[in-house]
Amino acid sequence: MNYQQVINQIAGEILSEKVEGNVATYIPELGKIDPNKFGVYLRTLSGESVAFGESEELFSVQSISKVLALTMAFNLLGEKLWERVGVEPSGTPFNSLIQLEYERGIPRNPLINSGAMVICDVLMDFYDDPLKAFIDFVRDVSGDASIHYNEAVAQSEKAHGFRNAALINLMKSFGNIRNPLDEVLKFYFYQCALEMSCKQLAQTFLLYAGHGKHPVTHQEIISVSKIKRINAIMQTCGFYDESGDFTFKVGLPGKSGVGGGIVAVHPGHFSVAVWSPCLNEKGNSIRGIKFLEELTTETKSSIF
Amino acid sequence: MNYQQVINQIAGEILSEKVEGNVATYIPELGKIDPNKFGVYLRTLSGESVAFGESEELFSVQSISKVLALTMAFNLLGEKLWERVGVEPSGTPFNSLIQLEYERGIPRNPLINSGAMVICDVLMDFYDDPLKAFIDFVRDVSGDASIHYNEAVAQSEKAHGFRNAALINLMKSFGNIRNPLDEVLKFYFYQCALEMSCKQLAQTFLLYAGHGKHPVTHQEIISVSKIKRINAIMQTCGFYDESGDFTFKVGLPGKSGVGGGIVAVHPGHFSVAVWSPCLNEKGNSIRGIKFLEELTTETKSSIF
Amino acid sequence: MNYQQVINQIAGEILSEKVEGNVATYIPELGKIDPNKFGVYLRTLSGESVAFGESEELFSVQSISKVLALTMAFNLLGEKLWERVGVEPSGTPFNSLIQLEYERGIPRNPLINSGAMVICDVLMDFYDDPLKAFIDFVRDVSGDASIHYNEAVAQSEKAHGFRNAALINLMKSFGNIRNPLDEVLKFYFYQCALEMSCKQLAQTFLLYAGHGKHPVTHQEIISVSKIKRINAIMQTCGFYDESGDFTFKVGLPGKSGVGGGIVAVHPGHFSVAVWSPCLNEKGNSIRGIKFLEELTTETKSSIF
Amino acid sequence: MNYQQVINQIAGEILSEKVEGNVATYIPELGKIDPNKFGVYLRTLSGESVAFGESEELFSVQSISKVLALTMAFNLLGEKLWERVGVEPSGTPFNSLIQLEYERGIPRNPLINSGAMVICDVLMDFYDDPLKAFIDFVRDVSGDASIHYNEAVAQSEKAHGFRNAALINLMKSFGNIRNPLDEVLKFYFYQCALEMSCKQLAQTFLLYAGHGKHPVTHQEIISVSKIKRINAIMQTCGFYDESGDFTFKVGLPGKSGVGGGIVAVHPGHFSVAVWSPCLNEKGNSIRGIKFLEELTTETKSSIF
Repeated sequence: MNYQQVINQIAGEILSEKVEGNVATYIPELGKIDPNKFGVYLRTLSGESVAFGESEELFSVQSISKVLALTMAFNLLGEKLWERVGVEPSGTPFNSLIQLEYERGIPRNPLINSGAMVICDVLMDFYDDPLKAFIDFVRDVSGDASIHYNEAVAQSEKAHGFRNAALINLMKSFGNIRNPLDEVLKFYFYQCALEMSCKQLAQTFLLYAGHGKHPVTHQEIISVSKIKRINAIMQTCGFYDESGDFTFKVGLPGKSGVGGGIVAVHPGHFSVAVWSPCLNEKGNSIRGIKFLEELTTETKSSIF
Repeated sequence: MNYQQVINQIAGEILSEKVEGNVATYIPELGKIDPNKFGVYLRTLSGESVAFGESEELFSVQSISKVLALTMAFNLLGEKLWERVGVEPSGTPFNSLIQLEYERGIPRNPLINSGAMVICDVLMDFYDDPLKAFIDFVRDVSGDASIHYNEAVAQSEKAHGFRNAALINLMKSFGNIRNPLDEVLKFYFYQCALEMSCKQLAQTFLLYAGHGKHPVTHQEIISVSKIKRINAIMQTCGFYDESGDFTFKVGLPGKSGVGGGIVAVHPGHFSVAVWSPCLNEKGNSIRGIKFLEELTTETKSSIF
Repeated sequence: MNYQQVINQIAGEILSEKVEGNVATYIPELGKIDPNKFGVYLRTLSGESVAFGESEELFSVQSISKVLALTMAFNLLGEKLWERVGVEPSGTPFNSLIQLEYERGIPRNPLINSGAMVICDVLMDFYDDPLKAFIDFVRDVSGDASIHYNEAVAQSEKAHGFRNAALINLMKSFGNIRNPLDEVLKFYFYQCALEMSCKQLAQTFLLYAGHGKHPVTHQEIISVSKIKRINAIMQTCGFYDESGDFTFKVGLPGKSGVGGGIVAVHPGHFSVAVWSPCLNEKGNSIRGIKFLEELTTETKSSIF
Repeated sequence: MNYQQVINQIAGEILSEKVEGNVATYIPELGKIDPNKFGVYLRTLSGESVAFGESEELFSVQSISKVLALTMAFNLLGEKLWERVGVEPSGTPFNSLIQLEYERGIPRNPLINSGAMVICDVLMDFYDDPLKAFIDFVRDVSGDASIHYNEAVAQSEKAHGFRNAALINLMKSFGNIRNPLDEVLKFYFYQCALEMSCKQLAQTFLLYAGHGKHPVTHQEIISVSKIKRINAIMQTCGFYDESGDFTFKVGLPGKSGVGGGIVAVHPGHFSVAVWSPCLNEKGNSIRGIKFLEELTTETKSSIF
């Protein structure tokens, strides 16, 4: 498979069409991004790398970070994690309080905001400095020590995070948060404010394509069984209320962020990251989904 | 992989434990089934067959039939089908009217009751005798002309189908049903009353493992692209409000029915059917899920 | 209090403004009504009568009939009635299935569609010919033997009553309907198709202003205690999801219908009926509410 | 009417039966109250006073205070108040976030927690020291300068108010709170922690029975029109999801608090306060409702 040729062609077609949608604006810092940015990076387990466009430019990974935090928490706590968060698709918009109230403070899955806050709370029980522990993990897996949090974005999230504050207070009222709310929110906001490039993301997510082994050292970071389960959660829950549609169109486990990034993995084969900031009404990158749909169609790489 | 040995072992362990749960009772005919029944049938694309227990005994496939009807409708109508039914997991119990009202008569996906009725309505636009067309399709793919509807079950469904009548009337009020309601319901009830064995189901679902090709003649029945998308829908929507959990535990696309049957497929490799009538509170076979979880763990055949 | 003078003035002002809103169209027969129709009739317990406009023209009373049927059922069954229907405001649009499913087939109150169907079902246990029993009751209380059902409207309701069919099937699935669904729906549709004038309505609702006594013979038809409770239900539930607003603005128990009629009662003093077919988005007569708000303000007759 | 005799008799009967239900425990301070406390105080506009039991003992008025704050805010802001809070019954439990999210941050009415916080926010725009302004108002109307906030209860509310924090953050995310959240919550918690006796409450609520006039000086504090509207809101919204039932049984506008107090008014006639701390599952005083139901039955004082 000549991935470079396929990617050039698909990207070329997509860039030839006018970009639709809008960049996220609820976090002011994100609203400043050029909507025409576009990058792709694909890494195969056999060592091949393919780049296109602004593939090394940093952007706010936002909810993509939820997969990484989940990986740490599942590795540390094992099956007991599922007493505090479910593995079912949410079926409602990503920040809805309705289902959370109905299900008495247990988030439907760890890839929606409420679930990710529970994951933060879990990690805080294991680390004195969870912000450092988290970025150390990301730097280790990505093999890139330069990765960092964007301070301005983190502050911007804090100043506008009233819905997230509502979510965490509601969970606290049901007893599903143990650490001080302010500290959990701070960890959560910084985690969302992680900045990475498509190249760094693709490298990092080889962990998920490669059955839990470190992309470079090939040491086991997390068991095959656990990594398969995380991939399964990405498949059913990775795109908020558009998860079924992404599965239907792209046929790979993946995760999106409101910064316009998407990562997807073909277990046993490759990881791929794409970045384009314009979002559809469900909060997912329009060109990102389009690109991945074409990619799996052209390369016949849907897992189904 | 010695599937027979693995299956014997897993099934032996499962049968050594007391059966939990209850058989479905809302349809009186289903309530008469012996809760200890247990059968397995696995077919590989390479021609291998493995059987265990009551693998050739007929049972009511119930919602498993929804996948077969969807296949016919998607083949006939193509992408226009998705104007009338979605591809998102439902996030609420399988017969809930709440989401259907909220989304103005468009069912979330074709594998919940409301969605399956829309599929029936679609098929009725193409066939004068949809009941005959449906069973002809099943007999053709399964290669077994003896397959039939169970008349007593079909009548039993009609007599107790008030929730389904509520669903179809609600969809009609939003304009999403075109044929006479009584006739759509009749088709739907007969479809659910289809009787098949694990062996027949495994044979039939080679279609989905085998990229849309007839299990015997290898002629294309439906395109690779379409069959992958149906597998994707099974993955995210095949187990009502337990779809995420099945994906998490088993890692294969599949579909359950309240008759206690489950089919799952490993694309490119095999199809497998299991039958055990005792259901958990979400309406899925307890031993069936347990068996498939062990099977994919032992054979490392999760698609993730 | 010179009611005639007050009513002339208020009605004059209202008619001087352009009529807003739209007549109900979901029942085709109702869509044919001239939107400029306007009638008022007020009757005091002391025998005074005041008329304005088309006060003797017949119109479709629609949901106003629910109060009359409730009165019969409460009188017959007593407190046991509340095992099958509640007395709480609905808090959701008038034909919503959501709350009905959540509350397992027990309608919130007898003045929403689902509740009124339960009332129909109750009456059918007492009468061989409930349609005759119902109209006999209305003719007796109103003192007008010419009152009748409009056959064209009743047929029109039947042909478009899919939401009502959804509601009754849902209640049946929870066991809260005992008689054949077709017959209950037929009774319900005819009841809604009752035709009365403002004059007839005002006369009839003296029953509610007059503590349960027949407006002409003064014999007790229903106990003081029961009639006060029916007035209380009108106060909290008479205007669907606008009941709080009507109570806030008008301050009298009342009931509206999508035919554009409203009746209200001032216990111990008077009953009043107003008719203007243009409805707001909540299904209540715009001019009707406006008129009554002005009337209670001018005459200081709010019960609060 | 010999109120003393009637009240003695009803209270005697109620006290002869074993008290059911439980005192509120979600605020630890309230959980310490003796469940057998019982007091009644009735004041007529003509100057009569009737007391029974612990009618002069202070208790936590909790949500009853919402009526007093609403009165101040409606008086200050007029009709513009209804742009920020509705007048419809809530139809869901008193602290539900579901409806608030669905209706985009506009509380259904000012007598549920979310609505009362909006009222607090409104008052903070008018007063530098809203806590002082509020208690000054209460002291003035009640004619009792000794009335105060219970500091321990206020602190207890703050420490356990996670649901209220969720509510206010959600409203803030929709832009319906203007002042700093901590300060609004503080005002709200102190307001709930107001301590009054049945005697003080009955005296204060003569304002509502007496058409807006000061109980002692008879000066107009709020217009007749506004006080009638506040009574109307109490009628439809005063008892959370039991408002319809209270209206049905008692037939007077009223307001309950989880401290076990209830006040009710018969416009033009009397105000009455009753206190008994044991609550039903909807959070309203069991004996309090029972007492008022008997009182209006015996004295025929339902407004309907």
